[in-house]
Amino acid sequence: MTQTNDALQIIKRGCNELLLEPELVEKLATGRPLRIKAGFDPTAPDLHLGHTVLLNKLRQFQELGHEAMFLIGDFTGMIGDPTGKNVTRKPLTRDDVIENARSYEQQIFKILDPEKTLVMFNSSWMGEMSAADLIGLAAKHTVARMLERDDFQKRYSTGQSIAIHEFLYPLIQGYDSVAMKADVELGGTDQKFNLLVGRELQKHFGQPPQVVLTMPILEGLDGVNKMSKSLGNYIGIHEPPNDMFGKLMSVSDDLMWRYIELLSFQPLSQMALWKKETSEGRNPRDIKVLFAQEIVTRFHSKVDAEAALADFEARFRQGAMPDEMPEISLAGGADGLPISQVLKQAGLTASTSDALRMIDQGGVKLDGEKLSDKTLKLKSGETVVAQVGKRKFARISVI
Amino acid sequence: MTQTNDALQIIKRGCNELLLEPELVEKLATGRPLRIKAGFDPTAPDLHLGHTVLLNKLRQFQELGHEAMFLIGDFTGMIGDPTGKNVTRKPLTRDDVIENARSYEQQIFKILDPEKTLVMFNSSWMGEMSAADLIGLAAKHTVARMLERDDFQKRYSTGQSIAIHEFLYPLIQGYDSVAMKADVELGGTDQKFNLLVGRELQKHFGQPPQVVLTMPILEGLDGVNKMSKSLGNYIGIHEPPNDMFGKLMSVSDDLMWRYIELLSFQPLSQMALWKKETSEGRNPRDIKVLFAQEIVTRFHSKVDAEAALADFEARFRQGAMPDEMPEISLAGGADGLPISQVLKQAGLTASTSDALRMIDQGGVKLDGEKLSDKTLKLKSGETVVAQVGKRKFARISVI
Repeated sequence: MTQTNDALQIIKRGCNELLLEPELVEKLATGRPLRIKAGFDPTAPDLHLGHTVLLNKLRQFQELGHEAMFLIGDFTGMIGDPTGKNVTRKPLTRDDVIENARSYEQQIFKILDPEKTLVMFNSSWMGEMSAADLIGLAAKHTVARMLERDDFQKRYSTGQSIAIHEFLYPLIQGYDSVAMKADVELGGTDQKFNLLVGRELQKHFGQPPQVVLTMPILEGLDGVNKMSKSLGNYIGIHEPPNDMFGKLMSVSDDLMWRYIELLSFQPLSQMALWKKETSEGRNPRDIKVLFAQEIVTRFHSKVDAEAALADFEARFRQGAMPDEMPEISLAGGADGLPISQVLKQAGLTASTSDALRMIDQGGVKLDGEKLSDKTLKLKSGETVVAQVGKRKFARISVI
Repeated sequence: MTQTNDALQIIKRGCNELLLEPELVEKLATGRPLRIKAGFDPTAPDLHLGHTVLLNKLRQFQELGHEAMFLIGDFTGMIGDPTGKNVTRKPLTRDDVIENARSYEQQIFKILDPEKTLVMFNSSWMGEMSAADLIGLAAKHTVARMLERDDFQKRYSTGQSIAIHEFLYPLIQGYDSVAMKADVELGGTDQKFNLLVGRELQKHFGQPPQVVLTMPILEGLDGVNKMSKSLGNYIGIHEPPNDMFGKLMSVSDDLMWRYIELLSFQPLSQMALWKKETSEGRNPRDIKVLFAQEIVTRFHSKVDAEAALADFEARFRQGAMPDEMPEISLAGGADGLPISQVLKQAGLTASTSDALRMIDQGGVKLDGEKLSDKTLKLKSGETVVAQVGKRKFARISVI
C-alpha cells in the first residue's frame, strides 16, 4: 500500500484532474502493468516542450512499470477535412502517416522507453469499422450532452456552425479506449470531455472504465499564454543547445518552478529541497542553471549542456547579469514591436532616438549578445533579457 | 409541352408541396422515364388506405411512363434500436426483411404495375458503407441545421433527449437518393426535411437534385385525425368487402371528396364532372357508392364490390337512410364511450336509460344492423350511422 501511495504521488505530480482516484488506487493495487493511453495528432510533428508534458507523464508511468500506448490518431487525419472548407488540410496518405510516425519516434524516444512503448494507429480498428457500427456508437450519446462540451456550447450559442461529424469525433476517440483496453488515459485539460466519453463507451462494452488524468497546458516563455509555435513563446526540442539554454534561463522564477514540476525528471523530493534552499537564501538562478542543463542534456547531450552554460556565462561575464531585475510585459501588436520602442517602453532609454543611438554605439545587448540590427522587431511571445549600458537590465516579454 | 402540362396536372393532384416545379417540368420535357423514389418502413407491413396515398402517386407516375422505385429502408431496421431503450424493437434479420418484402409485394401490386416497379433495399449500399464514408456524409450538414427540423427542435427545446445517431438517419435517407439516382422523391409532409437532405447530397455528389413531392397525411374516418391503426379510424386493405364498403359509405361528403382526390384512380375530369353534378342536385351518395365500389374492386374484385353494395342496400332497405343527417362528434375518452352515452349525447334518445330501453326493444341500428349488445363502447376514431326508431338518424364520430 505504501508502494501504491508512492506511485500515486508521482502520478499526481503536476496533474490537473484525476478521475477517479479510488479507481486508480484499485488498479495500481493489482500490481499488473497498466495500459496507459495518450493520443497525438497525426500531422507532421515538430515537438516543443509544451508537447512533452504528456510524454513526461507517460514516462513516469513507464518508470513505475506500466505500459505506454502512444496513439497516433491517423484515422480522422486520413479522412481529411470533410467539410471541404479548409483546402490546405489535405487528407493524409498512408505514406504520410508512416513518415510522421517515424518523425514522432525520433522525438519521443528522447523521453520514453522504447521497450515499454506501443506505438498504435487508430486506423487499424477504425478503418475496419462499418457505418452500422458507427451508428451504434452514435446512439450511445445525446445531442444535448454533446452540446454541453465547452467549445460546442460556445459555437452553438454564438451561431458558429458545427458540422455533424464533429459530434462523431469524440465518440471515435472514446472508442479508441475500448479498442486499446486502456486503464488510464492522459490528455490536456481541454480533452477532459472526450476522455470521459471513453469511460462511458468502455462501460458500455463491458470494460472497466479508464481513469482519466488531465495535465495542464504548459505556459510559454511569457508565463501567460500557452506555449505555441504560432505565438513564438516556445522552446522546440530541436533548437540548438545555446538557444534552448538561453531561453530557459530567461524565464521568471515563478515560471521556473512550474517548468520544473512539469518538465524535470528530478524527483519531487529534490524539488522540495530546492524550494527550501531558495527560501533560505539560495539564488534561484543556480536552480535554473541545473534545470536548463537537464533539459539540454535530454534533447542534446551532457557535453552540449556544459558548453551552453559556458557560452551563456561568457556572454554575461562582462556585465554580470544581476539576480534581480525588473520584469516588464509589453503589448506586441500584429507586426511585432520595434526594438527602439521596446527599450523606450521598458524605461531603459529616454526615447526611441536615444535607443537607436545606444544601439549604434554598441551599448545594447539582448540575452547577453550585442545588438546591431536597429530594425529588429520583437514578436508576441518573445522574452529577452535586455541590457543598456553597464547597469540597466530588464526581462521583457512581448505579449 | 401540352403533354408535359397534362402530366404536371396529374402529378400535382392532391399533392402538398412540389419543390421545385420548374425542375420537374425540365425533367418531364426530356421525355426519358424518370426514376421515382418512395421509401417505406421495413417492419411487417399491414397497409391501410392511408399508406396507399403514396403508392397511388407512384402509380400515376408509372402510368405516365416513369419508373417506380419502392425502397425498403431495411438498413436501419437491421441495426434495430441502438439506444437499447425500446426492447420490443429487435433488430430485423435478413429473413425478416425478405418476408416483409414479400408481404409488401402481395399488397402493393394491387396498386403498382410490377413491370415498372423496382423493389430496392438500402442495405445493398448502406451495408457496404464504411464509418469513414458516413463521417464524410455527416460533414455535409450542421448541427444547427439539423436542429431546425420540427421534431428535433421541439424535443431539444423541451429537454427530451435526441440520440446522436438520429442526426445520421436523415443523411442516410438522403444518401439513398444518391445511390438510387432518384429524379423525384415522394413522401409525406412530415418527410419534407429529409427529402430536402437528399437534394443537397445529390448536388454534392454531382447529381441533378431530385424533385421533392410531398403528399398530405390522409385523414381517418373521423375526418380529423390521421388514419392510423392505433386510432381505430382506418380501413385496412385486407378488410372484408362489406366492412370496407360500409366504412367508406359512412364518411362525410367533405371527406368523400378528399378521399376521391387521393384514393380514386378516376381522372380529374371525372371528379370535376361529379362535383358539377352534385352542385346541380345529384345525390352525393351516388358518387360515394361509385367510389366505394372502385376501392372494393381494387382490393377484392368487381363481384365482391357488387355483393357489398347489395348487402349494404339490403341493410338499409327497411329504414331508407336519409341523404342528409346530422353529423355529430363526441369525445371518446381512453376506454371508449358506452353506446347509451353515445345515443344520449347525440340527441337520439332523451337519456341513457331511454337508450338502453330502445336497444332492448330492438329499435337501435348501427350502420343498418340491429344492435343487441347494450355494453358496446365506441372507441376514438370510430364513425357509425346510428338509427333510433324509424326516423332518427345521425352520423356519429367519436374523437
